[in-house]
Amino acid sequence: MSINSDRYVIGVDFGTLSGRAVVVRVSDGTELGSAIHEYPHRVIDDTLPGGRVRLGPDWALQSPDDWWEVLGTAVPAALDAAGVTADQVIGIATDFTACTVLPATADGTPLCELLPDRPHAWPKLWKHHAAQPQADRINALAAERGESWLPRYGGKISSEWQFAKGLQVLQEDPEVYDRADRWIEAADWIVWRLTGAETRNVCTAGYKGIHQDGGYPTAEFLAALDPGFAGFTAKLGGELSPLGGLAGRLTAAAAKHTTLPEGTAVAVGNVDAHVTAAAADAVRPGQMVAIMGTSTCHVMPSDQLAEVPGMCGVVRDGIVPGLWGYEAGQSGVGDIFAWFTENSVPASCTARAAEAGMGLHEYLTSLAAAQPVGAHGLVALDWHNGNRSVLVDHNLSGVIAGLTLATRPEDVYRALIEATAFGARVIVETFEASGVPVEEFVVAGGLVKNAFLMQVYADVLRRPLSVIGSDQGPALGSAIHAAVAAGAYPDITAAAAAMGKRTAAAYLPDDARADAYDRLYAEYRRLHDHFADGEILHRLRAIRNEAGS
Amino acid sequence: MSINSDRYVIGVDFGTLSGRAVVVRVSDGTELGSAIHEYPHRVIDDTLPGGRVRLGPDWALQSPDDWWEVLGTAVPAALDAAGVTADQVIGIATDFTACTVLPATADGTPLCELLPDRPHAWPKLWKHHAAQPQADRINALAAERGESWLPRYGGKISSEWQFAKGLQVLQEDPEVYDRADRWIEAADWIVWRLTGAETRNVCTAGYKGIHQDGGYPTAEFLAALDPGFAGFTAKLGGELSPLGGLAGRLTAAAAKHTTLPEGTAVAVGNVDAHVTAAAADAVRPGQMVAIMGTSTCHVMPSDQLAEVPGMCGVVRDGIVPGLWGYEAGQSGVGDIFAWFTENSVPASCTARAAEAGMGLHEYLTSLAAAQPVGAHGLVALDWHNGNRSVLVDHNLSGVIAGLTLATRPEDVYRALIEATAFGARVIVETFEASGVPVEEFVVAGGLVKNAFLMQVYADVLRRPLSVIGSDQGPALGSAIHAAVAAGAYPDITAAAAAMGKRTAAAYLPDDARADAYDRLYAEYRRLHDHFADGEILHRLRAIRNEAGS
Repeated sequence: MSINSDRYVIGVDFGTLSGRAVVVRVSDGTELGSAIHEYPHRVIDDTLPGGRVRLGPDWALQSPDDWWEVLGTAVPAALDAAGVTADQVIGIATDFTACTVLPATADGTPLCELLPDRPHAWPKLWKHHAAQPQADRINALAAERGESWLPRYGGKISSEWQFAKGLQVLQEDPEVYDRADRWIEAADWIVWRLTGAETRNVCTAGYKGIHQDGGYPTAEFLAALDPGFAGFTAKLGGELSPLGGLAGRLTAAAAKHTTLPEGTAVAVGNVDAHVTAAAADAVRPGQMVAIMGTSTCHVMPSDQLAEVPGMCGVVRDGIVPGLWGYEAGQSGVGDIFAWFTENSVPASCTARAAEAGMGLHEYLTSLAAAQPVGAHGLVALDWHNGNRSVLVDHNLSGVIAGLTLATRPEDVYRALIEATAFGARVIVETFEASGVPVEEFVVAGGLVKNAFLMQVYADVLRRPLSVIGSDQGPALGSAIHAAVAAGAYPDITAAAAAMGKRTAAAYLPDDARADAYDRLYAEYRRLHDHFADGEILHRLRAIRNEAGS
Repeated sequence: MSINSDRYVIGVDFGTLSGRAVVVRVSDGTELGSAIHEYPHRVIDDTLPGGRVRLGPDWALQSPDDWWEVLGTAVPAALDAAGVTADQVIGIATDFTACTVLPATADGTPLCELLPDRPHAWPKLWKHHAAQPQADRINALAAERGESWLPRYGGKISSEWQFAKGLQVLQEDPEVYDRADRWIEAADWIVWRLTGAETRNVCTAGYKGIHQDGGYPTAEFLAALDPGFAGFTAKLGGELSPLGGLAGRLTAAAAKHTTLPEGTAVAVGNVDAHVTAAAADAVRPGQMVAIMGTSTCHVMPSDQLAEVPGMCGVVRDGIVPGLWGYEAGQSGVGDIFAWFTENSVPASCTARAAEAGMGLHEYLTSLAAAQPVGAHGLVALDWHNGNRSVLVDHNLSGVIAGLTLATRPEDVYRALIEATAFGARVIVETFEASGVPVEEFVVAGGLVKNAFLMQVYADVLRRPLSVIGSDQGPALGSAIHAAVAAGAYPDITAAAAAMGKRTAAAYLPDDARADAYDRLYAEYRRLHDHFADGEILHRLRAIRNEAGS
């Protein structure tokens, strides 16, 4: 038995509402124990803590104290649950939602500790959407100037990302902007807090910070956005740190807080979606990992660089060192199913589900699964939350066609599941048409548990579907990064092969169903292409917004 | 006080599941009493009475005994309820669903009395849809030969009508066809039973029997359909009888059965929708009456003859003598709202409606009515049951666009109501664009009670909406025809003016809302025109049908 069989690493996943720590055996990735700590402040979207300062619409903030509490409570609790002692732990790594970003002083103190009544002093959560005007300006100017980095993001910088959010701070609270020596991803800030040393991981710098070909957008470009913004990149990192790298070692204070030994290896920060690729042992070129939950994020390493229309980003070393890392996404997946069950399933159906001792999703799935492909006569567009890839248009909306007086709830439910599968197929086909082969489709995330949904994806994509073997993918992925940072493995690929968990070809496509889906997919593409220009859907949204205002 | 103030007429409305008799004062149309009798056999669509002979899909039959029972039970009961004695009754008239048609011997005996085990010997109800192959053949041949009558039906003869159903009998049971001396609408058969004399009313002969410009389709055309069909029109009537005319007088047997005096005037038969125009006092040129229930039927007299695309038919004297009578329709209206509440309203909503002491329709309406126009961001196509006018395509289906994760049940409910209003606007605009002015829009039928829905129609149509003042429109209309047949009024127009009930301009359009609806209607038209060719929707239906088979 290798020396790794009694050595352990800890992965900590910082989500939107809670943080989770998991203790993992270095030798084989066995997850021995885990613990969750919910953020006391959850998402701050109404008033600042204290209740005196109200926030505007589309704001979403978080508290750094909440994150720190996770390390002080969930880490010891996970060790307890695992029956592992702190001295057996050789490394810790963290992953974070992104782009979640905050202003800090030169020593890493969050500005919200100094200016608690100033909204812009607080960390902006990924889903803070109030910087859309700034994003629009960035995109218009970049397109006009033909900035070379723009195509690396499918042609659009998101309002969720570092530059739009930073520009918003400058334009709405210049004093906070001036006092922010650093503008830093939470993913890097938490590592700073653990190690006492600031690092900047290549992943968030690339996907969220417009770091391409060795640098950020030029001062000239930034000055053209706003003269005061010219020096913005001085607040960002200098040299970037590679994923799986050693960021530093636990300080005495952090050691005391986490109960881990001082000097324990701390890995470079990372993003929840991207680190999941390691957990699924899917970090080789062409392995596309779809993390399917409320929405879906697709990450895929490749040895090809291409401009894929509508992708979220392509970043060198962005998933594993040495490869291009691609990201794409579907804005609504599980969210659409949840919306449907909450708003469109009649009481009679709810009662029958209860009689059968089933949840609504389970009951609808059982009815839907009994149908032959296409028997419902429906096709839907899965744009209820907009379309991230390949159209990059948050102002699109959902469509369903083929409704009759015989249409039943399970018909629509199935059509919505299929619509998300068709959406995934559009993404896969777009990558392949752009010269980036997709060799394997690997599913992670909460929806992996729905066997019917998995089979629909296999049939629609007409390819075997692999699935992750863990239900805490990001935390396991972080643990794998920790093992690399601690030197237990030479690189992420080797560590993922030993510790990651993937059932290859867990679902196989059925030829007859795949043929039937080809016909439905052709209709989906027709609807997709007809509504893609947003002509009708944008006007409906404009009418809605005017009526509501 | 005129002599008419103590004279009464009886209108009998034969519906799909029951018949209703109403006793009406001749002088002013006051409805004094009514009674309903449900058909014991309801709709015969599974097995023939006796249970031994099974029917095919899409079959729908009725029993003449059920109709006769209505006259023997509902008529005396209505007199009782009205406190009117039989000797005060001067006339009776009937209206019927159409095309409901039966084979009979030369003396009017229904063939089903002689051949009870032969499905084709029974009356075919209007919604018997098993003659579609015959209708397809009629339409193809008529188009190929350029038959002059085809444009009078918007370019398509329905499978529901006399010729398609008659051809089906010939081709599937030639012996029944041969033994049928007469092929007669139930509307005329019931009058025959009351009077002992066969008549053929101009309305069903025109709308359901392809009687145009003084004659039926030629023997040559019929022989080309099927050599055995050449003499079909010999089974139909010769001379047609005008609406409001005196068909004959009650026989002794019919008098005994109904408890009315022998010799009471019996009016020429009529159709439920068309006779409603008289009940609403809307029989002048340009008064379009929309009978809104599960579906909507539009009838309108006009002094203009035009070929209106997608109308159901235009018939000389078809609503009132001396004018062209137009008919159009929307295949699904109340049916769509009922489908939605049964299939798409969540338990939480049902519970809140119950707490508020409201029905689901009422509750959803109250929520929907509180919204500004367009605030839901949706537009729907009301084709869940196909599109009768102006597209004449049963194989279309419903579409909804603009769905988001914020869409609530009341949003969709409102969008569906609006969709039916937009469908009505397409019909009105098509008539006017064809040179047939619509001067007044009058609503009858069950949906007239929904004030919010009425207001939506007024706003969408951008014109005042008149409403009928009776909730038993067809029976009242028949009573008006009875008064004319009995000689109490010189014609239907005069009788309708005295006895019909209409609140003119009951709902007025609001300019601001109408402007907002213009924008939504423009999107409806775009969707309408995009999906009108059936390209996507027909393929979805074909996929559905193949999957289901």
